[in-house]
Amino acid sequence: MSKRIVIVGGDGAGMSAAAQAKRRDPSLVITAYEKGPVVSYSACSIPYYVGKVVNQTDQLIARTPEEFHRQLGISVHTEHEVVDLDLHNQRLQVRSDGSTAWESYDELVLATGAVPIVPSWPGVSARGVYSVKSLEDGVSIRRDIEHRHPLTAVVVGGGYIGLEMAENLRHWGIKTMLLEQKAAVMPTMDPDMGELIVEALVGLGVDVFLEEEVMGFDVADGWVRAVQTRRRNVAADLVILGLGVRPQSALAQRAGLPLGIKQAIKVDPYLRTEVAHVWAVGDVTESHHLVTGQPTYIALATVANKQGRIAGLNLSGSATPFPGVLGTAITRVGATEVARTGITLTEAKEAGIDAKETRIQAETKLGYFSDVSPITVKLVAEVGSGRVLGGQIVGGSGSGKRIDTIATALSARMTVTQVVDLDLAYAPPFSDVWDPVQIAARTLVPKL
Amino acid sequence: MSKRIVIVGGDGAGMSAAAQAKRRDPSLVITAYEKGPVVSYSACSIPYYVGKVVNQTDQLIARTPEEFHRQLGISVHTEHEVVDLDLHNQRLQVRSDGSTAWESYDELVLATGAVPIVPSWPGVSARGVYSVKSLEDGVSIRRDIEHRHPLTAVVVGGGYIGLEMAENLRHWGIKTMLLEQKAAVMPTMDPDMGELIVEALVGLGVDVFLEEEVMGFDVADGWVRAVQTRRRNVAADLVILGLGVRPQSALAQRAGLPLGIKQAIKVDPYLRTEVAHVWAVGDVTESHHLVTGQPTYIALATVANKQGRIAGLNLSGSATPFPGVLGTAITRVGATEVARTGITLTEAKEAGIDAKETRIQAETKLGYFSDVSPITVKLVAEVGSGRVLGGQIVGGSGSGKRIDTIATALSARMTVTQVVDLDLAYAPPFSDVWDPVQIAARTLVPKL
Repeated sequence: MSKRIVIVGGDGAGMSAAAQAKRRDPSLVITAYEKGPVVSYSACSIPYYVGKVVNQTDQLIARTPEEFHRQLGISVHTEHEVVDLDLHNQRLQVRSDGSTAWESYDELVLATGAVPIVPSWPGVSARGVYSVKSLEDGVSIRRDIEHRHPLTAVVVGGGYIGLEMAENLRHWGIKTMLLEQKAAVMPTMDPDMGELIVEALVGLGVDVFLEEEVMGFDVADGWVRAVQTRRRNVAADLVILGLGVRPQSALAQRAGLPLGIKQAIKVDPYLRTEVAHVWAVGDVTESHHLVTGQPTYIALATVANKQGRIAGLNLSGSATPFPGVLGTAITRVGATEVARTGITLTEAKEAGIDAKETRIQAETKLGYFSDVSPITVKLVAEVGSGRVLGGQIVGGSGSGKRIDTIATALSARMTVTQVVDLDLAYAPPFSDVWDPVQIAARTLVPKL
Repeated sequence: MSKRIVIVGGDGAGMSAAAQAKRRDPSLVITAYEKGPVVSYSACSIPYYVGKVVNQTDQLIARTPEEFHRQLGISVHTEHEVVDLDLHNQRLQVRSDGSTAWESYDELVLATGAVPIVPSWPGVSARGVYSVKSLEDGVSIRRDIEHRHPLTAVVVGGGYIGLEMAENLRHWGIKTMLLEQKAAVMPTMDPDMGELIVEALVGLGVDVFLEEEVMGFDVADGWVRAVQTRRRNVAADLVILGLGVRPQSALAQRAGLPLGIKQAIKVDPYLRTEVAHVWAVGDVTESHHLVTGQPTYIALATVANKQGRIAGLNLSGSATPFPGVLGTAITRVGATEVARTGITLTEAKEAGIDAKETRIQAETKLGYFSDVSPITVKLVAEVGSGRVLGGQIVGGSGSGKRIDTIATALSARMTVTQVVDLDLAYAPPFSDVWDPVQIAARTLVPKL
């Protein structure tokens, strides 16, 4: 009899696993259950949908359930929620249209993703207050803007989603304020890099308030009217919460699967959980950090898709490990590009690594081009070995993706000397003769 | 007594060596002789000077002789030509203002660079026919354009300089034709990638003729009037030769220094020649190719500056090897970015490596952005091991510098599987969730 694989969760990780496995072994019978109305959509695009950069939600959907069935022979059921797992008997309970049924599996892939963190602030459930995770969130926010024409918005949280939402709200001309509880935006980067990001936000007309602790919301007629912080009361017709996510692992936890850091599901390098025939991928899963060697939780689409691919290979007869993650990430604030990979100096110290850092400013191309911009590069390296541990970049057009050079060097465990020796591309419209990444690395080369 | 270092040639390689050595060991007495009128200028910027992107030659000069003296304590003599070497007695003959003198050295650095290849075509020395190597070449071409207002130009040769000069001549509205002897432009890349580059040239209004063998030039009153090819006679008020360079190694050869590939000076990994106390760096020097392990000749500013730095370290007491080169290079043709690194499939075959290639087309960002462009990525990998051997990229804004990811992977001797596993940066304005480099690598991963 054909092997029956059930996927729980129809986003990038789960559907990548399904597609990869089915392509390699067409005999597999694969069924995916998704509790929401759509699968395989670009969650990272939601801010750009809100900001009118893209106008049709179907442009954000890589493949519909019908296409999965027709093109790949995979059954996808939306509006089907998996409510219980019976791992001992290899079955799961699925609810749809108010009724439930038990389904059996030979291999189970948990790809239930993450949910936005929403503190229990008074008034947080008022109308006009939104998280940004699902496509429906994006549709609701945009519809609200189009119908209600909010004049003022407050974005709570200065991480990726907060920055991207603030930028995209400005596309509507909405007066936008960003509140961050910490002393700097972008918590995965250093405060001095955060200052450059704040400059970019201010350049877009976003008011940024740091060290602002939200206490709750003023609500009238069911709608949010203002954000109360410890210091002030800020009028707001619209509030966007960008406070990060946590793994949606309650189902796995109830079934007895061991959880790890931040309650993410523990997996081995092959993405198997500790229970036979149960796999986990994507934002619900713990990862191995390639720099620290420690477990980490990084909810990013790149990681989810890579894990999905690896699980798909292994579900179809391979034994391919997933090497781990660096937390490489990028975004932009207007024309300013922001990227990071590996660990910061603070994280190095927390991991017990003796490290030092450098920060240089260079230019994105030779200075005589009219569109030259500054680029700031920060590198962290281990004292003694010179091994590169992490990097951060903020700069104009052409800056951000230079983080990939650092990420590749991190994966190869290169030293700063090896980065200086790299044969990177130079021409006047692209770089100085020493790439900014190498200019930074040079300052960390031990004196010989 | 202080050690006396003499540098022959005042461009990037020689002056990098001088600056690095002097910074580390201020007791060194360093003298540089340059036969031309300027030192330490950006030769790669000459096309952009001709094309009015930059208007002042002093913007192309990193440091003047006076600045070298004042800031670093290095003596730089322009218009001083080294005409003879007496390596046995550690001295060299310098000519200036018509007189010559012998100078002694403790360590000698040959950084005499390269000269443009100029075939002995009839009429090639006519006025209006230019090579593009020195800053004076650039000044002459631009002055000629400003004074004589040429209506038609022919660029001979479809390499980097040819492409860049064609683009920059179009900034003046000059009707420009590019002639290439081979069946494709950009000889360091594959013909199918060359086709994309021709499209970009045509988009700028450049007429491109391939397989055109130049036979000579029509000359009247001392000025070029037309280019004669085997097939046609092309009217031209201005002719630019972009036929590559060869090492300027005659001085070294006369002194008995062993030459290698293409008559470049042979050096060991520390950049020492085979004669004691004589070093060679930059465009006059042979390099070690990191992919083939064979000697190669690559005249690029990046290599020259890196070699200068390494020689400077070693002249001041270090023992640092220069690992070698990949031939990583980049340019642009209008908005089209062009880059390459490592070796092509043809070069792999010539080197006896069993290799295969892939070519994919992706997009520079998610498709809903109005400024999305196609990006074509070609990867070459060894059969069996899967080791990546080379890459080529042609695409819109944001494409070219992705070559650095491939170059870094090449330096680390990564396999295509390791490239697929890389944690590269993704956000909708920068990439698809799989970077185009990884999309290419995926197609080469052996079926598991």
